[in-house]
Amino acid sequence: MSSLFVRTLREDPADAEVASHRLLVRAGYIRRAAPGIYTWLPLGLRVLGKIEAVVREEMAAAGAQEVHFPALLPREPYEATHRWTEYGPNLFRLQDRKKADYLLAPTHEEMFTLLVKDLYSSYKDLPVTLFQIQTKYRDEARPRAGLIRGREFVMKDAYSFDVDDAGLEAAYQAQRDAYERVFTRLGLEYVIVAATSGAMGGSRSEEFLSPSAIGEDTYVRSAGGYTANVEAVVTPVPAAVDASGVPAAHVEDTPDTPTIATLVAAANERHPRADGVAWTAADTLKNVVLALSHPDGTREVVVVGLPGDREVDLKRAEASFAPAEVEAAGDADFAKHPELVKGYIGPGVVGRTDTGREDAVRYLLDPRVVDGTCWITGANVSGKHVFDLVAGRDFVGDGTVETAEVRAGDPAPDGSGPLELARGIEIGHIFQLGRKYAEALGLKVLDQNGKQVTVTMGSYGIGVTRALAALAEAHHDDSGLAWPAHVAPAHVHVVATGKDAAVLAAADDVATRLSERGVEVLFDDRPKVSPGVKFADAELLGVPLVVVVGRGLADGVVEVRPRTGGESEQVTVADVVDTVAARVAQLLGS
Amino acid sequence: MSSLFVRTLREDPADAEVASHRLLVRAGYIRRAAPGIYTWLPLGLRVLGKIEAVVREEMAAAGAQEVHFPALLPREPYEATHRWTEYGPNLFRLQDRKKADYLLAPTHEEMFTLLVKDLYSSYKDLPVTLFQIQTKYRDEARPRAGLIRGREFVMKDAYSFDVDDAGLEAAYQAQRDAYERVFTRLGLEYVIVAATSGAMGGSRSEEFLSPSAIGEDTYVRSAGGYTANVEAVVTPVPAAVDASGVPAAHVEDTPDTPTIATLVAAANERHPRADGVAWTAADTLKNVVLALSHPDGTREVVVVGLPGDREVDLKRAEASFAPAEVEAAGDADFAKHPELVKGYIGPGVVGRTDTGREDAVRYLLDPRVVDGTCWITGANVSGKHVFDLVAGRDFVGDGTVETAEVRAGDPAPDGSGPLELARGIEIGHIFQLGRKYAEALGLKVLDQNGKQVTVTMGSYGIGVTRALAALAEAHHDDSGLAWPAHVAPAHVHVVATGKDAAVLAAADDVATRLSERGVEVLFDDRPKVSPGVKFADAELLGVPLVVVVGRGLADGVVEVRPRTGGESEQVTVADVVDTVAARVAQLLGS
Repeated sequence: MSSLFVRTLREDPADAEVASHRLLVRAGYIRRAAPGIYTWLPLGLRVLGKIEAVVREEMAAAGAQEVHFPALLPREPYEATHRWTEYGPNLFRLQDRKKADYLLAPTHEEMFTLLVKDLYSSYKDLPVTLFQIQTKYRDEARPRAGLIRGREFVMKDAYSFDVDDAGLEAAYQAQRDAYERVFTRLGLEYVIVAATSGAMGGSRSEEFLSPSAIGEDTYVRSAGGYTANVEAVVTPVPAAVDASGVPAAHVEDTPDTPTIATLVAAANERHPRADGVAWTAADTLKNVVLALSHPDGTREVVVVGLPGDREVDLKRAEASFAPAEVEAAGDADFAKHPELVKGYIGPGVVGRTDTGREDAVRYLLDPRVVDGTCWITGANVSGKHVFDLVAGRDFVGDGTVETAEVRAGDPAPDGSGPLELARGIEIGHIFQLGRKYAEALGLKVLDQNGKQVTVTMGSYGIGVTRALAALAEAHHDDSGLAWPAHVAPAHVHVVATGKDAAVLAAADDVATRLSERGVEVLFDDRPKVSPGVKFADAELLGVPLVVVVGRGLADGVVEVRPRTGGESEQVTVADVVDTVAARVAQLLGS
Repeated sequence: MSSLFVRTLREDPADAEVASHRLLVRAGYIRRAAPGIYTWLPLGLRVLGKIEAVVREEMAAAGAQEVHFPALLPREPYEATHRWTEYGPNLFRLQDRKKADYLLAPTHEEMFTLLVKDLYSSYKDLPVTLFQIQTKYRDEARPRAGLIRGREFVMKDAYSFDVDDAGLEAAYQAQRDAYERVFTRLGLEYVIVAATSGAMGGSRSEEFLSPSAIGEDTYVRSAGGYTANVEAVVTPVPAAVDASGVPAAHVEDTPDTPTIATLVAAANERHPRADGVAWTAADTLKNVVLALSHPDGTREVVVVGLPGDREVDLKRAEASFAPAEVEAAGDADFAKHPELVKGYIGPGVVGRTDTGREDAVRYLLDPRVVDGTCWITGANVSGKHVFDLVAGRDFVGDGTVETAEVRAGDPAPDGSGPLELARGIEIGHIFQLGRKYAEALGLKVLDQNGKQVTVTMGSYGIGVTRALAALAEAHHDDSGLAWPAHVAPAHVHVVATGKDAAVLAAADDVATRLSERGVEVLFDDRPKVSPGVKFADAELLGVPLVVVVGRGLADGVVEVRPRTGGESEQVTVADVVDTVAARVAQLLGS
């Protein structure tokens, strides 16, 4: 510690919102170089190296071979798959001195596809799974939470190549199993949830989430075992309703009712239901105007119709409209569409199917708006709503879209019970890509009959730097970090207390003997630092075992303290090496 | 080999000029992704990893601590040291989505300086030496020779921080010693030569060159032990000459003599020397027009005067005029300067000192043009030269500059004898930077007297990917690569020949038993590949020992062949593991 390049901080950094960011900076593991871009100090680099080693071992165990691609890549392959454009502003783009276009790769599907195309030509060459541990770049709109959403970060990305769907399924399962082993070995709790494929494309994907209140992803689970990212939850479609008894739609005066709450109040007061039951928000059809920013730079206004008791979840909307970015429409959007009477929008002026006009704003319906359902909705005139408007009879929309929020208690799509919601940090994502990239880039091999067949692919990512942050989120307390032994920067933190030369010499001896036994030791030999500061630093740095050499030395004992969860113990100087080595072996499960 | 992700090529890649490039591609170690940008396949990555491990161990042994900086960096620190501009078109620059300027770092002096400033504040914290092994970017005008001059490459860069010059000297020596150990362990012959500091700045620097005919650097050495990059050779300045007996300068007709050869011929024919000795090129003063491209985008024409028997060496000129880029002046440059009469340029119209005009073209002299030397040179009129023009009497120029070529036989600057020339690949470069970066970025610490002092720094680079290429240049033959054991992708290449299942089983057994003994084995188990192809592949891949299991098996023997330098040997199946393990241990020097 007297020569280690580290300085601990007592104060939280001003920009740190989450524990991992705060503690990794305070403990001298990382330093910010630019927004979302971090420098690794010696202790941080050790932890990162240990995580990488576990990932590398499990990839090898799963039969994946390691390669390494450049981060600086030419535009052409990403043009062929349209991702040069689809990534929009998330891609760092640049030109070289000859004005040729380059990018800093956010992920490498294209390059792996081209490499396999370059080397392989026969079904006999397959299957193959390749991986790399490599620096990735994404120009996030809002880099945040330290390492959790960065702009330069380390990923393990693997890609599988197979001739048929069964092969892809097996490769996918092998990676999925390897991920379970990786996160288990790292000491990182995880849940596997169904996910959307987003800009990646492909047929099936799952995410590995580390449960955490500060996670950016919300996921659902049912008692019956269904799990999914909320973005991937498919709303069960209710059966159609018999609306034969519903009277014709009729427009009613509803002055000053631009919101669902005011509309429901006015409806109950001025137009009560015939059966006397009160109208609720669920009886209204809310029409929400969204603005889509397409990757080609165009902006499109769409209207989404959903039950009035549901809000639009912009992340679910974005998953549905990918690769477009989605936001609530603004004044400029409304100005371009005078037919949209804010607060009173309804079918009739929107929807290409309903209006028969190709230039009409698209009108998309929540899956709950099935034929025969009956609604109160806007009449496209200020202060007026239409009642008894029946889906399928009076309007049809241009299709359905998943934009409505998922709520606790909603039914699981597979009938396995009501859903609970929780938050998590995405630490892994695995995709069955299918043939999208192979088709775009012409990756074919000869099959057993000498016929050219397009290869089918999977893509498998672990956020290595993010996993480190997730570990810090999961393993800390108010005093600092508390690493699981497998990823800790050292196994034992030896603290010499007191200014006595004999204490320092005894501590040095303990540290040396432990090192000789293969135990990784961080030795706090700083001569002029008080015991209080040393103890605080040891708690902040988070090494799993602390050995205090000091006051007890007169009685021939030292103290062995676990960083968390356990009692401290007095051990004789003669026994300390055996005792600590045994404890370390136990912590490492070896 | 049957499942390894590798394909060997029989044909040389069309763009490969040098052996390392040709063989690394043919043997399936690397693939080109873009000009000067390469992908690492499994075998290449193994070799790269072994080189990195040696570098890392020797850095640790030298007391350097490992950190890791981003490659994507903000403009500001590089602005403070002027390198944002000075790097000119060699820097990859880009903007993020908020239009903030970033660069892909070519080297990290600024960031290390700021990091130490961030963490340290007292002389007690020093000395410290930090390093990283990291991906670097330079937008080379002419990427060439595969990994030797790339645009994305791996470097080890270390930086030392000291309070005084003695500390810097010690840190520099520690790194220099570590470099010697690194290259020795890698099996890479090297010479250490004095070097110029170029865009890096600082007072002293040395390069580690791997001698190679295809190297881009030319260096000199004398019998007395002087070594230097030609760019760093300082011309010994001759003593001034007594020119009191030289008549006044006189202009003579020399029609059609735009070159030194035609001038010398005409001078001997029409204006012979009074003493009857023939004029030679060395009696003429050649005035060469160069165009400097300054990093700020401006272009400057300068005239360099040097003895007519010497050519301008553009690399020496570039070292002298750094950070400007240098080329021969073109027609457009001459068009802007009508006073420069091509082929007949001389003092009088150039030189701010000589003409007394601030807007005159700068006129810089070779150090050999000392006071009293007497020259034939251009008279600034077509077809006329001036004779008996004496330096110091008739012209003085605006200073001296090193641009003249160094030739074999030139005297060493330290008087240690005549120079020989050779070529080498730059694999390391160490600099005593001094206080340039610390001053620009405000890195000060409190000294023992409580006074703020500016820290002094060193910077130490190893081209890791380039060292791999230099190893391939030094260790190959016509059949392929021939790696030293420490960096080879495996220690032993076991080749099973013949289609007999028993052969494959025996080979598999040998490979397995060798692996169990800790020997790294590459096993060619491909069932349908002919022995000839397998042998050719083994020679191409370059693993140091080859074990052939095949025909001899009937007699209970296998063949053990060194890849180079040694006889092949028949060894019994019973002995083969012991024999090979012993050979490997010998090759590894362990």
